[in-house]
Amino acid sequence: MTLLDQTLSSIPGSLDEDTFHRAKERLANQAKPAGSLGIMEEVSARLAAIKGTIDVRLTNKRIVTCAGDHGVAEEGVSLFPAEVTPQMVYNFAGGGASVNVIADHAGAIVKAADIGVNHDFEPDLPIFHKKVRHGTANFTKEPAMTREEAVQSIEAGIEMVNELDAETPLDLLGTGDMGIANTTPSSAIIAAFSGVEVEALTGRGTGIGDQALANKIRVIQTGLDRHRPDPEDPIDVLHKVGGLEIGALAGLVLGAAAKGVPVICDGLISTAGALIACELAPSAKNYLFVSHKSVEKGHRFMHERLGLDPLIDLKFRLGEGTGAAVCMELLDLSTRILADIKTFEEVGVTNAQ
Amino acid sequence: MTLLDQTLSSIPGSLDEDTFHRAKERLANQAKPAGSLGIMEEVSARLAAIKGTIDVRLTNKRIVTCAGDHGVAEEGVSLFPAEVTPQMVYNFAGGGASVNVIADHAGAIVKAADIGVNHDFEPDLPIFHKKVRHGTANFTKEPAMTREEAVQSIEAGIEMVNELDAETPLDLLGTGDMGIANTTPSSAIIAAFSGVEVEALTGRGTGIGDQALANKIRVIQTGLDRHRPDPEDPIDVLHKVGGLEIGALAGLVLGAAAKGVPVICDGLISTAGALIACELAPSAKNYLFVSHKSVEKGHRFMHERLGLDPLIDLKFRLGEGTGAAVCMELLDLSTRILADIKTFEEVGVTNAQ
Repeated sequence: MTLLDQTLSSIPGSLDEDTFHRAKERLANQAKPAGSLGIMEEVSARLAAIKGTIDVRLTNKRIVTCAGDHGVAEEGVSLFPAEVTPQMVYNFAGGGASVNVIADHAGAIVKAADIGVNHDFEPDLPIFHKKVRHGTANFTKEPAMTREEAVQSIEAGIEMVNELDAETPLDLLGTGDMGIANTTPSSAIIAAFSGVEVEALTGRGTGIGDQALANKIRVIQTGLDRHRPDPEDPIDVLHKVGGLEIGALAGLVLGAAAKGVPVICDGLISTAGALIACELAPSAKNYLFVSHKSVEKGHRFMHERLGLDPLIDLKFRLGEGTGAAVCMELLDLSTRILADIKTFEEVGVTNAQ
Repeated sequence: MTLLDQTLSSIPGSLDEDTFHRAKERLANQAKPAGSLGIMEEVSARLAAIKGTIDVRLTNKRIVTCAGDHGVAEEGVSLFPAEVTPQMVYNFAGGGASVNVIADHAGAIVKAADIGVNHDFEPDLPIFHKKVRHGTANFTKEPAMTREEAVQSIEAGIEMVNELDAETPLDLLGTGDMGIANTTPSSAIIAAFSGVEVEALTGRGTGIGDQALANKIRVIQTGLDRHRPDPEDPIDVLHKVGGLEIGALAGLVLGAAAKGVPVICDGLISTAGALIACELAPSAKNYLFVSHKSVEKGHRFMHERLGLDPLIDLKFRLGEGTGAAVCMELLDLSTRILADIKTFEEVGVTNAQ
């Protein structure tokens, strides 16, 4: 049995219903109008059901920022040159990037992962060294990677969860991405699964202008027309449009779900990974939280397909795990809301008439 | 010169433009696509301009939860009996309420304030003792309070800011409310200022049903028809519909602005107070952040009139300062985003082409 098959078969079909109901009951009895803390109450009850306790403590919070390069970058779909991918991996390792700063604030530790960067990192660089290949192929010409490489990239994600959890049991995992041009395969992925017109779901990524956007739409359409990825076969989709880091992002979600660890995904690229994970194993959704609503217009179609609502809309369009990191604070807060707000009875306040 | 006049005349007309431009420049040079941290970038630049530095530290964060009773409660506009107002003040003082739990998470200290509760608290209860009167009058029959009491309630808010700031210089102030029936005067306030139909802006408060909602709309309309509050005279509006805690909430905003302290308001009731403050002194808006979008449908009209966008929408409808407390973490985070994310030059990453 492969690691992927083994992981898929270990994801529980449902959460702990008894704890879920106890959480709901406590929330309803707290000295406040019923349901008045809205989405935070829902989040807290699901976290309780995942962890099997009312008093959840999200102590060990990790973010894995998966990096990969994209052959399709040569089609001019990004404002930034591909050399920025490895440069940013060094920046993550050095602690000066956006995700590092936001994760620090949330009490989370970031580790970058090389899944498919077109650069050879020094073996002692403190990142996950999980390179599957030096970037994908240009999907307008050939499949982004082989089917075997697609499986390997997913398994790289699973392995990282297993390694982190073996080191110190994981309480919460966040996913993030880095890869110049990676909004292009992400948009292709949601187009393949949803059947929505490419034009309706392709955004400006790092901030391209009108002409570059028209080109990006053409590039995605060309890839889809050439390879006809099968939406019933998520690995086929990944293999044909990529990317390597997106495979690993799927693996992070699957690995977390198999270990019973809540996982929060970031923007367009991380959600593309989460989507592949949930197409492979729908019950992984029980463990998945979607953090923010990206400025990227394809993101909404991913959330619709997942049936999950993002927690915040701060007009982010950065990736790296920045939105996931912001929302880690909210998930943490929700655990305190459930456990620490006193009930009407505990504080002698009169309930509604 | 009264405390109110003195405070109004000390609010600066504009923020530090030099620091604002330096903040914008740093944000544009950070190693990320320009503007990709969206609203957090805007918030960080405004905080920098308020504080006159790029490296803002929001250390001393306080929330003042202003409480008052409402004569109009006898019209059956809330699910909860009026006795809950003092009970909740004891709950805030004891630390077990929703706002206490959320503020703890944000590293903020909550202090409740009696502005107009219909109960005599023990003098040693650790709250602000600023009672103007024992609750407002029922505004369907007479003005909620006198014009002098309206000014007094605003001055109570200003005094609290001055006292807190004298104790330890304030870095960030949050506002919150408690007062059974207080969505009713809040809806009346925005109806008076905006001229929008009462039906379009009246919500369910603590969760009333259809019949009670129809009654609440009738109650608000009766008050407005009877007293015809003058939208050009914010103190007239406050005097006629109330409430006492709403006056203090206006005073908190004015006091903070006069001291150059950023202030973040909570939901419908706190925003009603902020609105009165900004109608009295439009430049107070420079110091004001609006936290969340409440489920209460009148809230949106307040944000429109203020010209400020809420940061989050977590479907809260609780008050107490809970939304303000959640957003304090975001304001704090924004300061780290501006100061700590490295620039392209600092980390040797290639900028956009």
